[in-house]
Amino acid sequence: MLSKDMLALGTRRSVIREIFEFGKKRAAEVGPENVFDFSIGNPSIPAPECVKKAILELLDKEDPCVLHGYTSAQGDPRARRAIADYVNKTHGVALSPDDIYMTCGAAASLIISLKAMCVPGDEFISFAPFFPEYKVFVEAVGGRFAVIPPDAPRFQISAEQLRRTVNEHTKAVIINSPNNPSGVIYSAETLKSLAAVLEEKAREYGHPIYLLADEPYRELVYDKNITVPYPMKFYKNTIVCYSYSKSLSLPGERIGYIAVSPEMEGSRDMYFAICGAGRALGYVCAPSMFQLAVAKCQGQTGDLEAYKANRDLLYDGLTKLGFECVHPDGAFYLFVKSPEADDEAFCEKAKKYDLLLVAGAGFGAPGYVRLAYCVKKSMIERSMPAFEKLIKEYR
Amino acid sequence: MLSKDMLALGTRRSVIREIFEFGKKRAAEVGPENVFDFSIGNPSIPAPECVKKAILELLDKEDPCVLHGYTSAQGDPRARRAIADYVNKTHGVALSPDDIYMTCGAAASLIISLKAMCVPGDEFISFAPFFPEYKVFVEAVGGRFAVIPPDAPRFQISAEQLRRTVNEHTKAVIINSPNNPSGVIYSAETLKSLAAVLEEKAREYGHPIYLLADEPYRELVYDKNITVPYPMKFYKNTIVCYSYSKSLSLPGERIGYIAVSPEMEGSRDMYFAICGAGRALGYVCAPSMFQLAVAKCQGQTGDLEAYKANRDLLYDGLTKLGFECVHPDGAFYLFVKSPEADDEAFCEKAKKYDLLLVAGAGFGAPGYVRLAYCVKKSMIERSMPAFEKLIKEYR
Repeated sequence: MLSKDMLALGTRRSVIREIFEFGKKRAAEVGPENVFDFSIGNPSIPAPECVKKAILELLDKEDPCVLHGYTSAQGDPRARRAIADYVNKTHGVALSPDDIYMTCGAAASLIISLKAMCVPGDEFISFAPFFPEYKVFVEAVGGRFAVIPPDAPRFQISAEQLRRTVNEHTKAVIINSPNNPSGVIYSAETLKSLAAVLEEKAREYGHPIYLLADEPYRELVYDKNITVPYPMKFYKNTIVCYSYSKSLSLPGERIGYIAVSPEMEGSRDMYFAICGAGRALGYVCAPSMFQLAVAKCQGQTGDLEAYKANRDLLYDGLTKLGFECVHPDGAFYLFVKSPEADDEAFCEKAKKYDLLLVAGAGFGAPGYVRLAYCVKKSMIERSMPAFEKLIKEYR
Repeated sequence: MLSKDMLALGTRRSVIREIFEFGKKRAAEVGPENVFDFSIGNPSIPAPECVKKAILELLDKEDPCVLHGYTSAQGDPRARRAIADYVNKTHGVALSPDDIYMTCGAAASLIISLKAMCVPGDEFISFAPFFPEYKVFVEAVGGRFAVIPPDAPRFQISAEQLRRTVNEHTKAVIINSPNNPSGVIYSAETLKSLAAVLEEKAREYGHPIYLLADEPYRELVYDKNITVPYPMKFYKNTIVCYSYSKSLSLPGERIGYIAVSPEMEGSRDMYFAICGAGRALGYVCAPSMFQLAVAKCQGQTGDLEAYKANRDLLYDGLTKLGFECVHPDGAFYLFVKSPEADDEAFCEKAKKYDLLLVAGAGFGAPGYVRLAYCVKKSMIERSMPAFEKLIKEYR
């Protein structure tokens, strides 16, 4: 007998995987140029030149036994120093390298943080729409996952709903901004009211409630006047889970970090528990060469103009056709209201026109669909007549 | 309240870490050339040229969006094909690429396999001396860890002891050959008798007992007439947990794989449960560029002659001085009998001569000490007078 949960997780084809297979089949039938796949959140812009330059320099100058050798479990001190310096300078916080723990990407950052803090009976809250793996990770460490329904159509966070949901078992709240799948950025106002509720409830229950900020999309913002507030500045009991997957277009390299707010109550214990959790989960250390490579690329990104052009084209095109959609300020997703209540039925209809969308139900937001616009611009252009035919079905 | 277990794991300084700190302090006091640190199992020979060549080629020729992009959770099909082909050709088995699951190294291979199979009440058996993290990983997935005492002085496996230890709760047996810390290679005879006991007990209890073969040292063998038997050929319910950390001197890059024997009962379910466990543990995929790099380096190793020269020098030197030691055929460790029953007391005495050794107690084998000879040859040469002084204390 194997673990039933693991077998189910590994066997159940994900919705996105099924769409991918459908897309392959259709591409063979009608030609790849006639299939419009908006399902996958895989960066479509190459890593910036600094990544290749950094790797070539490292291969040339570093002792290979060091370059490819174990780092300490927390990560190479040079990498942690570079990251702390950059974050401090950019966001006005006061991280030391010993507040940074290098990880194999955002998923590792999240599960390690959850494993560090979870004790039996703990509950973790997230806000729909949310990245579906949150539930998988929370349950894998033995926690209960609770969801606050979407605050449609703004897709911010309702402090009132949070106040009603937090209870004595709440260990942490997970947020994701810029958000996958809505593209929304939580405003400073939202973070302030979130922090106020968590502080009030922590006092009421006599224990801290942590904020886990999942931030792989932090740099993917397309308007100069919009910034992504840094959650640590609003709430001291914050852990930032970061990844370079999107900012440097390195999703396969599995490189990111955890930053523990130095102002957190018991911040040293949290950091050590994170070290313990990383060890218990078999992480050993983050990939060594990429630790040093990202250290050399702080503040760099791929050419985000390509995503911005895609966003504008898709958002303008779809709203002109009559689709309703919250304006996506960041990430590379558009969260469109389904013209019928059943988002899965809408996705099925879209498939008739070879438009591959992902239903919102999996993100905890039925009635919506996600479009990933990290695609070729020409595909968006070619897709517009198909969207027009699709919306006509609802007129 | 954080997880007490994780806090303890992260706070407790490992013995090896303490030795490392002591060594640093002494190096500052007496000069680094007078400190003889045999404590760390970190490869001391550089990665072979093929690794750098592969990376340069990949950076030059691959689309960066593919090279650094997500692979499927199982791993890039090209990498899995290259590995299956190489293992099949080398060991005469019949793996398909779909029996291979790429991982972030041996630790990830182990914990993913354990998580895939563990259900409440399960027990996992290993043989002393064993790699201490086995206990951490088994307990992290909720299993009970049982140890069979050392089969000194041969350090093979006693089938009799195994027969007495296996019970209805035994889910799997973990072996490690070439062994850390003994350097011993389990013989074909040993694997045959191990398989016979597991088959007998599986029949008795009516469920399979899996064999987890942890094989990061497989290629580190120093005599032409000695081979490391491939466990899958002796026992069908085998999972091989492999890593390129030692063979290609890439321990920091976290790259390895799991191979599920296609002859295993329910082998497809095991593979899917492994996919699920990798997902639940936040692994997403193994580092993408190194998946392709190791695919290009199948069958290559660093210059193992350096380890062989070290082994011969250290083994001959110590046995000539009167130390007792099983002949280490593989890995890069020597497991020396402590001249007094208390191995920790012996390690303390050794520190007086700036000889840094690791006590066997942590490996489940009190009365022995581990010396890692992945060091500079000149350090071994310089250390001999210190060993001579040390053994004189016991004459």
